[in-house]
Amino acid sequence: MRASFLATDSTIRKDSRGTPYLSLKLVDRTGSVDARMWGKLPEEFLHEPPSPAYVDVEGHTHEYRGTLQVKLDRLRLLRPEDVSEEDYLPASELDRRALSAELESAGRELENEHLRALFEKMASDEDFWTTFCEAPAAKTMHHARIGGLLEHSVNCLRIARMLAELYPVDRDLLVFGAIFHDVGKVRELSWDKGAFAYTTEGRLLGHVVLGERLVASYVATLPEFPEELRLRLAHVLISHQGETEYGSPERPKTLEALLIHLVDNLDARAAMYIETTKNVSPGGWSHHENPLGRALFVPEES
Amino acid sequence: MRASFLATDSTIRKDSRGTPYLSLKLVDRTGSVDARMWGKLPEEFLHEPPSPAYVDVEGHTHEYRGTLQVKLDRLRLLRPEDVSEEDYLPASELDRRALSAELESAGRELENEHLRALFEKMASDEDFWTTFCEAPAAKTMHHARIGGLLEHSVNCLRIARMLAELYPVDRDLLVFGAIFHDVGKVRELSWDKGAFAYTTEGRLLGHVVLGERLVASYVATLPEFPEELRLRLAHVLISHQGETEYGSPERPKTLEALLIHLVDNLDARAAMYIETTKNVSPGGWSHHENPLGRALFVPEES
Amino acid sequence: MRASFLATDSTIRKDSRGTPYLSLKLVDRTGSVDARMWGKLPEEFLHEPPSPAYVDVEGHTHEYRGTLQVKLDRLRLLRPEDVSEEDYLPASELDRRALSAELESAGRELENEHLRALFEKMASDEDFWTTFCEAPAAKTMHHARIGGLLEHSVNCLRIARMLAELYPVDRDLLVFGAIFHDVGKVRELSWDKGAFAYTTEGRLLGHVVLGERLVASYVATLPEFPEELRLRLAHVLISHQGETEYGSPERPKTLEALLIHLVDNLDARAAMYIETTKNVSPGGWSHHENPLGRALFVPEES
Amino acid sequence: MRASFLATDSTIRKDSRGTPYLSLKLVDRTGSVDARMWGKLPEEFLHEPPSPAYVDVEGHTHEYRGTLQVKLDRLRLLRPEDVSEEDYLPASELDRRALSAELESAGRELENEHLRALFEKMASDEDFWTTFCEAPAAKTMHHARIGGLLEHSVNCLRIARMLAELYPVDRDLLVFGAIFHDVGKVRELSWDKGAFAYTTEGRLLGHVVLGERLVASYVATLPEFPEELRLRLAHVLISHQGETEYGSPERPKTLEALLIHLVDNLDARAAMYIETTKNVSPGGWSHHENPLGRALFVPEES
Amino acid sequence: MRASFLATDSTIRKDSRGTPYLSLKLVDRTGSVDARMWGKLPEEFLHEPPSPAYVDVEGHTHEYRGTLQVKLDRLRLLRPEDVSEEDYLPASELDRRALSAELESAGRELENEHLRALFEKMASDEDFWTTFCEAPAAKTMHHARIGGLLEHSVNCLRIARMLAELYPVDRDLLVFGAIFHDVGKVRELSWDKGAFAYTTEGRLLGHVVLGERLVASYVATLPEFPEELRLRLAHVLISHQGETEYGSPERPKTLEALLIHLVDNLDARAAMYIETTKNVSPGGWSHHENPLGRALFVPEES
Amino acid sequence: MRASFLATDSTIRKDSRGTPYLSLKLVDRTGSVDARMWGKLPEEFLHEPPSPAYVDVEGHTHEYRGTLQVKLDRLRLLRPEDVSEEDYLPASELDRRALSAELESAGRELENEHLRALFEKMASDEDFWTTFCEAPAAKTMHHARIGGLLEHSVNCLRIARMLAELYPVDRDLLVFGAIFHDVGKVRELSWDKGAFAYTTEGRLLGHVVLGERLVASYVATLPEFPEELRLRLAHVLISHQGETEYGSPERPKTLEALLIHLVDNLDARAAMYIETTKNVSPGGWSHHENPLGRALFVPEES
Repeated sequence: MRASFLATDSTIRKDSRGTPYLSLKLVDRTGSVDARMWGKLPEEFLHEPPSPAYVDVEGHTHEYRGTLQVKLDRLRLLRPEDVSEEDYLPASELDRRALSAELESAGRELENEHLRALFEKMASDEDFWTTFCEAPAAKTMHHARIGGLLEHSVNCLRIARMLAELYPVDRDLLVFGAIFHDVGKVRELSWDKGAFAYTTEGRLLGHVVLGERLVASYVATLPEFPEELRLRLAHVLISHQGETEYGSPERPKTLEALLIHLVDNLDARAAMYIETTKNVSPGGWSHHENPLGRALFVPEES
Repeated sequence: MRASFLATDSTIRKDSRGTPYLSLKLVDRTGSVDARMWGKLPEEFLHEPPSPAYVDVEGHTHEYRGTLQVKLDRLRLLRPEDVSEEDYLPASELDRRALSAELESAGRELENEHLRALFEKMASDEDFWTTFCEAPAAKTMHHARIGGLLEHSVNCLRIARMLAELYPVDRDLLVFGAIFHDVGKVRELSWDKGAFAYTTEGRLLGHVVLGERLVASYVATLPEFPEELRLRLAHVLISHQGETEYGSPERPKTLEALLIHLVDNLDARAAMYIETTKNVSPGGWSHHENPLGRALFVPEES
Repeated sequence: MRASFLATDSTIRKDSRGTPYLSLKLVDRTGSVDARMWGKLPEEFLHEPPSPAYVDVEGHTHEYRGTLQVKLDRLRLLRPEDVSEEDYLPASELDRRALSAELESAGRELENEHLRALFEKMASDEDFWTTFCEAPAAKTMHHARIGGLLEHSVNCLRIARMLAELYPVDRDLLVFGAIFHDVGKVRELSWDKGAFAYTTEGRLLGHVVLGERLVASYVATLPEFPEELRLRLAHVLISHQGETEYGSPERPKTLEALLIHLVDNLDARAAMYIETTKNVSPGGWSHHENPLGRALFVPEES
Repeated sequence: MRASFLATDSTIRKDSRGTPYLSLKLVDRTGSVDARMWGKLPEEFLHEPPSPAYVDVEGHTHEYRGTLQVKLDRLRLLRPEDVSEEDYLPASELDRRALSAELESAGRELENEHLRALFEKMASDEDFWTTFCEAPAAKTMHHARIGGLLEHSVNCLRIARMLAELYPVDRDLLVFGAIFHDVGKVRELSWDKGAFAYTTEGRLLGHVVLGERLVASYVATLPEFPEELRLRLAHVLISHQGETEYGSPERPKTLEALLIHLVDNLDARAAMYIETTKNVSPGGWSHHENPLGRALFVPEES
Repeated sequence: MRASFLATDSTIRKDSRGTPYLSLKLVDRTGSVDARMWGKLPEEFLHEPPSPAYVDVEGHTHEYRGTLQVKLDRLRLLRPEDVSEEDYLPASELDRRALSAELESAGRELENEHLRALFEKMASDEDFWTTFCEAPAAKTMHHARIGGLLEHSVNCLRIARMLAELYPVDRDLLVFGAIFHDVGKVRELSWDKGAFAYTTEGRLLGHVVLGERLVASYVATLPEFPEELRLRLAHVLISHQGETEYGSPERPKTLEALLIHLVDNLDARAAMYIETTKNVSPGGWSHHENPLGRALFVPEES
Repeated sequence: MRASFLATDSTIRKDSRGTPYLSLKLVDRTGSVDARMWGKLPEEFLHEPPSPAYVDVEGHTHEYRGTLQVKLDRLRLLRPEDVSEEDYLPASELDRRALSAELESAGRELENEHLRALFEKMASDEDFWTTFCEAPAAKTMHHARIGGLLEHSVNCLRIARMLAELYPVDRDLLVFGAIFHDVGKVRELSWDKGAFAYTTEGRLLGHVVLGERLVASYVATLPEFPEELRLRLAHVLISHQGETEYGSPERPKTLEALLIHLVDNLDARAAMYIETTKNVSPGGWSHHENPLGRALFVPEES
């Protein structure tokens, strides 16, 4: 293995025999992995290693207590001006163009003419659509990567479509809500300075209100949009957190709103499991500190 | 005492000697009082008395276990078509014109030109202003009366003005927020059919979101309104419930938002005490079932 | 409309003009509906009407404040010995044979030989299988009807199958868990005496422990069943309530357990909405008192 | 069975055949039991039966759905002036003189001279000691009977003595605290008007503060009482509810305070079980509505 | 800038270029500020810097990510024996003599003779009054500075006076409670050894009980003090935390007690905002870790 | 003092004069103690000291801020291969053979022949019984030592015996439950690799379910075991955590189950106090971070 990374959490420790070694985390677009380096360390890492720092490394991966780890043979500090920060932001590994096309096709197939017109307004607003396909779904909890919101929206869409066949629901509103329930994230979060962060309006108003406002601004351009549909759509957007303590000013009171909340929660929690156990090897357990708040098990066999 | 009321909770009971009597509650604009009637009851009240029903009564008040009560001598059923429903909705006992003038004067004295212009837009929208001065502040919890929102807003204004002298706060934003933090109630509640009720949009979106939207619609007519002020004002409106579990999608994060929440809460709780103990006589205790969830004491002396 | 029902909650009330009427609820296999009767009541209903009681009625349905209601023209008391109690227990309206066949086909298609063998053991135990296809899914919360557990299991199976295509999951364990996560209900509940009730072992041990024990008793007959699979399966069963406060001694720690919990919850909540709003007409609101704990809206259009 | 009782909760119901009957609860010093009366009712009970009312009855007990019940043959209303109210207040069935002697003997055997002197002060204050031996331990939750506080104190004393042999504890402080932790009940509650009730100072200050004050008033008469012991004793008294939400301003922070809280809780909960299941027959279940908040089981055999 | 401070949290870090620097916090009577030092560090700070330690520094302030910071040019360690510890305890910046006079004047103006006599007893007890004017209002949460309790009491007094004009309240009791609700802090906390700390009696009994006891000891010297007033005053003192989980054995049940709690809470929370954002520059956000538990915003303009 | 220990939490700090010293914790079978070393440190401890590490030390104990501490004069690193790991696992200081004999004698004295037979099955299964007498009662909370489960079971037995004389309880079931309520710990925890840890089945199923299963496997060998007793015993085992949020799928619903829960809780909390304050000297306070979540006081005198 030979590549460059953002090195974080670098510290010098000693092993049980008293030998000092460097412990650090290597981050790039594909995620992060723990690493260790014994032996001759570069001058800059001898005492208090710089952290975070861009580095160039050589090494090989192995398993330690059920989790993948990298043992470094060589480590070299890169200067910030020599790297391109966005290369080190985690990003979706899926084909974002294909995912975006899947959403667009779902939008074109909406039978309700008003929701279809609304979708078209939004998807054809190039600035918005580009941002929507690029945004992370969260700062840290799940899908915290470029394109993460897109991945989450596509998963929710797929589940929603299936549920529309099980329950007596307004299919078009369910599909529209599945795609755009988290749209306020495009304003709540920023991802342009080498890190995911909250914006000031994100912290003052939150993605629930910002998302409702954003969709309402497109609805305002459609004079024929029916009043009741506008209300039901706004309700889906503001209630999707499911409970007031999670930031929804009202709880879901229509079947579409209830299902959007449950689907959002389901995909978010599945992602938390998958992302937390990414480097855990079969038969092993993750750490306790993760968004699900408990150690997670990766079976030997499945 | 001789007057007409809305009679509610009418039931036939027997006293400790086995004598039957009618127990009921008499409601009109000034509030409600418990009543009892022994002896010859009108035919319609003999078995299952109609409830609610409009009635004409004669009787006299006395004290029973520390609470005022009316003993009826005469009771006559009125036909719904013979009464004017709005006469029986509880209403503020204060001079609503004076209260409204107090708000308008506070609005004219705002030093920030943008907030002053915004206030003028709102106060000069006659439909809105009339509704605002007429609305109850809640369905049941506190200030549940015609003009109740106005009373609550004036109290909050008075406290806010005083606090502006204690803390390093944006006085104009504090004053504006004190007046309008609950403005969404004008759309969340209805009071036109002889009772206070929730509207459908009130139940689907809630007064927090409806209030922010309503103010935003006036801000939208003021192109010079500064962006940061718009954001801070929206934050005051959506965070005034103080905690997410009480329906605010974000908690207060500016000093103005924090104080508005605390002032709103203070006046609401004081009103709960005052309204609950209205008919309790000195040295007595109220019932447990009231918005504060505990029996309340009315001292002998104070 | 002319039919026989179980009449519950019968009381005499008076309308706003003082005219007395009978208010009651009519229950049969298909659910329940509110009813009213004015005019000449049968002798037995004149003062304190018997409740519950089996009755024969004639009348017609209409809408009242957004909810369907029956206005009765005729009402006759039936003697308990003249009715067959099970005809009045709510029962699934779906074809239970088709649903059961859907489960059996899913069982036969399991690729994991051990889970397939386990399924066959269970489905071929005629006593068990008949009971499983007959049991309600709950006493009151959702799917409280004969065949309700079967309906719920089939819905969970359908959603689970779809999710197996989205997430890196052990498809067979997910399918098996979707079908049998609530199997303990067959021992927790009884439905043989004209009502759904908890059994003594249901109250002392609960369906979570009873279900795990029941499946374990079939696993014990399969000596080849792998130890880790046995453990993961037990984990799915005991953790499916999702949180300890809802009765799971451990929270889900594998992806299969997590998804089973989420799917169970999703179908249960959708059913609560659907069952609560069954008689609410378009544009109307349900009562607050229902398993979701909030008034629910039925849109005009969808 | 023939005796007089306080009859509460009297209502007329109809059985499944439509026959009306009287349902009521019979209360006296020994507790309460449900009763039913079919057939010819006294005039006063025909429509709305007086409740509560003193009655003279004849009848016989039998078991109904696992709970003892009385079927009345004869029922006669007594006039309040013909009964002695205190005869109908539930009272301890144990020998209060023996219990009181057990406490006094424990007090005399305290080895710590200061606590022994304090105990003597209190036990020799005749007004106080009589009241202490007469008070109920609560208004409704457990030991709600004349002498109930005494019973509870003796039980706590017995358990505390045993624990003093298991743990490295200040035996004398533990014994003293076991006896007097709930002493504030003598001022929080009143039992002189035919019912258990809260006093005004009981509602304003609570038994935790009142008990600490009461003991402190006796300590104040003992100038030699060591300062640290005074503090540790006050801590035991104010922390015995165990958690702030149950009304202790501080949680237990010494071993004696911790054990007093746990012993108090243990005896209170055991009493809740015993009192709730008093009339439940073997193999039966109690109602849900009781201080433990769950149906309780009485085994067949034990 | 040149001055001496208590330096805390000193650690050596490296910047993004790998250059080591010293990070520390400088504390004195006026509060605290973050500081950094690059370049030649004194010998004692080279490896593990002593912390806390008294230091003499030269440097200049600048803004970093929206928070004021000091860049040090020179740093010298002082020996503990060369400093006067109390100079480094944070202290009120207001004129404590003027604040104390404001309280005394309010006390003299009480119309109720008993409360006025009580106030005079307390204010003329020189030891007590000096301590009261010197005490901090808390160890860390708000007003954690010499004279902090005085500042908080004066603020509460000012708000209480204003509220006495809005609500039908016993003005004198409200004023007295506003001044002395937190008086127990003088025994709960100590501030004589260079730091704010809890006393043993503070941890065992808490300021709620200690405050009530302290006032009661002065009331005991006034034989004419009316019983009901004594009870209402004790209630104000023990209930001022507002909820049992915050350490009040009873919740407020009189209007005075309710308002004292709300005023106490309002001033405490306003102080938390003000103290947390002291060094945050306009347009910036505070850290999350502060008594309000959320990042706080300081607007650009206000 | 001269002995070998497991040294944990080793770090280099500087005192208030800037002198560096080593701070560490010394652990062996008898518990743990804080230690400090000034002056000449061994080479391996100069910069980042190895931690945990086995060490040989000389020094003497003294008191620091109310807690015992060791000041080291000499410190030498031991190689892992030169120590026997189990010597450093904390272990009960009591005579485990005597404790085990006490349980066995209690088992032989059970009057219920089925419970006595069950006890004999379990106590005569040598593998099981050895493990049961060796297991810790928890990983960290209380009795976290070899033989800790045995100590806890004996304490619970002693309290249960005493309670059987106070309450109308099935003495044999109470005694049996007191001994074996926590038996699932033998599978939930492991203690064979130099540390206490959770097993995989412990984390997936928990000691509540594992204990019930384990006892059920012995019951299964006793064909005469009565069905109701089997159910009541299973209920005691699964409900002993007392509340669902602490991991019991059902709450206690029999008197035996209720008492077992209360006794378990009582002994666990007493142990938390005793273990937390082990090294605190008279008049001192423990740290806040302990299983009871509050600082604990050790009186001067008792």
